Amino acid sequence: VETVATQTRHEIMEQPSVLGRVVDNNWPLAVEYAQAIRDAGVTNVLVAARGTSDHAATYAKYLFGAHNRLIVAQAAPSLYTYYHQSPRLDRTLVIGISQSGVSPDIVEVLADARSQGALTLAVTNSENSPLASTASLVLPCLAGPESAVAATKTYTAELACMAVLSAAMEGAPERRAELETMPGAVSEALMLQPQVSQHAERYRYMESCVVLSRGFNFATAQEIALKAKELAYVHTQAYSAADFMHGPLASLYEGFPLFAIVVSGAVYSTLYDSLKATLERQAELIVLSDMDEALRLSRHGLRIPRVPEWLSPIVAVIPGQWFALDLALTKGYDPDKPRAIHKVTETR
Amino acid sequence: VETVATQTRHEIMEQPSVLGRVVDNNWPLAVEYAQAIRDAGVTNVLVAARGTSDHAATYAKYLFGAHNRLIVAQAAPSLYTYYHQSPRLDRTLVIGISQSGVSPDIVEVLADARSQGALTLAVTNSENSPLASTASLVLPCLAGPESAVAATKTYTAELACMAVLSAAMEGAPERRAELETMPGAVSEALMLQPQVSQHAERYRYMESCVVLSRGFNFATAQEIALKAKELAYVHTQAYSAADFMHGPLASLYEGFPLFAIVVSGAVYSTLYDSLKATLERQAELIVLSDMDEALRLSRHGLRIPRVPEWLSPIVAVIPGQWFALDLALTKGYDPDKPRAIHKVTETR
Repeated sequence: VETVATQTRHEIMEQPSVLGRVVDNNWPLAVEYAQAIRDAGVTNVLVAARGTSDHAATYAKYLFGAHNRLIVAQAAPSLYTYYHQSPRLDRTLVIGISQSGVSPDIVEVLADARSQGALTLAVTNSENSPLASTASLVLPCLAGPESAVAATKTYTAELACMAVLSAAMEGAPERRAELETMPGAVSEALMLQPQVSQHAERYRYMESCVVLSRGFNFATAQEIALKAKELAYVHTQAYSAADFMHGPLASLYEGFPLFAIVVSGAVYSTLYDSLKATLERQAELIVLSDMDEALRLSRHGLRIPRVPEWLSPIVAVIPGQWFALDLALTKGYDPDKPRAIHKVTETR
Repeated sequence: VETVATQTRHEIMEQPSVLGRVVDNNWPLAVEYAQAIRDAGVTNVLVAARGTSDHAATYAKYLFGAHNRLIVAQAAPSLYTYYHQSPRLDRTLVIGISQSGVSPDIVEVLADARSQGALTLAVTNSENSPLASTASLVLPCLAGPESAVAATKTYTAELACMAVLSAAMEGAPERRAELETMPGAVSEALMLQPQVSQHAERYRYMESCVVLSRGFNFATAQEIALKAKELAYVHTQAYSAADFMHGPLASLYEGFPLFAIVVSGAVYSTLYDSLKATLERQAELIVLSDMDEALRLSRHGLRIPRVPEWLSPIVAVIPGQWFALDLALTKGYDPDKPRAIHKVTETR
């Protein structure tokens, strides 16, 4: 695949600078918000988001669970917009995540929360949006205008906002230092583009595939699956490896393409074992990993830079973004303007 | 497709009697548990489940949200088993749903909750299981032994357990009466088998498809997608229609098979509009509905019996179970013993 200058490519390349900005600018805000969250006696979190932003909610579920001992529920917006019932929100922090900040259903969840007196936080790339003006706290994505239809830089910026907030709530000094190293690792990961490009051609006629991970990187699997769907129109599906073993494993056949994100950390060994089970069914495995052992599982491996596990989703999604882009180009599609969808989807 | 006597078929047919038993036997238990839940000052719910049982958790999220004003979070078991961090559970009801009651990760979520002093409830088909003995409250599925690998009667029994509990918590007398009508509607839905069978052959060479719904029946879409995957090895994927519009719509092409569950009720109109958008992209639509207007969208419609929306997932899944079974038979697979998976999957 030749390198074509697309808007999507341009926005993918902007990520290190956007992420550096999010860490620097949002840290003092996050420290202040962490105090407000403690003062409100928050015991659980409700996140309202759709599409790509909902994958940032998945990340928050693992991150706030593992580092902040908070239960995270993903909101069902239709409860507000169609069933006209809202859950009671005692001691709940309600977070709305939306690049544009305009989707009416997400705004409605926050408006209801505010009317119930709950603490509300908007994570958005548009500080003048209805979502931002509805929430009492705002963490901006600081990504600049995103004009490609598929979200790339705003996705990693949303993850970084969550990471900064979690670190500030936890108050452990090493977290701040770990955050500082993350934009550099993202730059490293961007260098994988030529290697990814070589792979893309092989999958020109792939009709469907599965993306597998677990824990923090289940969000990465969801996001890579969605990008491949939006840009290259492939029927991709993301699974937590544990859920995959509960049934969908049956649908694997010889040569079926299975992408796996397997980074070092708490779930590495269980994920490694699950992948070995898929090899027994002769799946074609494509591994994104920072571990030699996992990379040896497959002839189609991509080594990603090592960062602490909690930050790895921000790094590991990068080769997936490249893959979706290159696959779209290989297939002759315009990645900046996928068919049928628009930049802002207003759902109720 | 000839009617073949399989264990799966036998268990599908048992559903009306199982469901009648769940309503009758579990009602007094649910009334007692509802009191315990009020006494514990429960404000939110955490559900731990995997595979089919996780779709019962999806149902609980909408049902407890719309009828009981409770936030429902779906647990991330790896937080307990690998990250060794558990969320704080102030005023949280923790529900474990598992047919077998043996999956270690689900048991661990309940054990942790109990050690934190939270109220715990097991919904299981095995009253002597580790899950049942770990929980302080048990709602039995009363489905008898389920020996086919793919869960059918235990799925609808799990939904019915949730419905009975929600109705008891709500305390509205009409709910009890509505519950009484549900097993008869399930018997009606079972009569769709010959019609479904006629459809199955058409999809012999379908490689992937999408199952769409919203609200209460998002659970139905998830469950039908999983059955087709487990029994007929089709790459199916379930979406909430609103999420589908946020990106995956791009991957539709002419003739792509799209199953939709569109029942009367709060989300009917929005779902109908979404389906019209998929027709603009020339998808092949297969509609399960109790509404003439929706059935007219497609030459491939199946009319399902009308019940109140909150109970419709127990009825609407039935033609999907038949479809997965008939598709497996059409393709020459053994539905009772799908390749690669086992009845009990123990994940950590």
